[in-house]
Amino acid sequence: MMVGIDHIGIAVRDLDEQIALYRDRLGLRFEGIEEVPAQKVRVAFFDAGGARVELLESTSPDGPIARHIDRRGEGLHHVAYRVADIRAAMAQAAAQGLRLIDEEPRPGAHGTLVCFLHPRSTGGVLTELVQHMGSES
Amino acid sequence: MMVGIDHIGIAVRDLDEQIALYRDRLGLRFEGIEEVPAQKVRVAFFDAGGARVELLESTSPDGPIARHIDRRGEGLHHVAYRVADIRAAMAQAAAQGLRLIDEEPRPGAHGTLVCFLHPRSTGGVLTELVQHMGSES
Repeated sequence: MMVGIDHIGIAVRDLDEQIALYRDRLGLRFEGIEEVPAQKVRVAFFDAGGARVELLESTSPDGPIARHIDRRGEGLHHVAYRVADIRAAMAQAAAQGLRLIDEEPRPGAHGTLVCFLHPRSTGGVLTELVQHMGSES
Repeated sequence: MMVGIDHIGIAVRDLDEQIALYRDRLGLRFEGIEEVPAQKVRVAFFDAGGARVELLESTSPDGPIARHIDRRGEGLHHVAYRVADIRAAMAQAAAQGLRLIDEEPRPGAHGTLVCFLHPRSTGGVLTELVQHMGSES
């Protein structure tokens, strides 16, 4: 069902500070910043050998990243897997008894369509399915 | 400094149960199990498009994975980046002010050499550097 890891998502309080960590001190290649209103985040992207590292800063105190940091602190937030067809992958996940957070695909960064699986059905790991559209990768 | 994501490490209580999740329900390709005594874990590997998913089950109640699950529950544990030369990467990380958990490289799975960076210096993310040896990948 899944092609491979698309990205890992990391919840951060201060995007600029963490960009400096990943770009300047850890040496990943910085690719840019995008705001994703549907998830109330600003996202910084880094190339990490095919997969990406995404740093997520909340744009609202009631956004999912702000709430995650309130509960658990900064750090690893989710793992995203690339799929060829998001609706087919969602149907397959549901058929396997996995719990979908999103009933319909919703817009992610880079013009993707995404769906999250609830960590209660995936061993405590918030898991995202991502379909890239057209030539965008 | 880092070539790309080598693997993500996920802390699990029951390796067999979570192998079934990743192999049968999420559809990742299962590659096998290895015990890593230096870290008191049994590790199940999955191919995830170049990077791997590693499920980590503690072999001891005082191992780092058992302690992580006691404190934070099951779920995402660390991100590992592949480096060409572990000692050079460790020196560079230390020079950047990052805090090394291991003063010397220690043995990881697949005959690798690894070093962990303390999450206090990496935005709450337990970060591992991994050097693969010889033709092993």
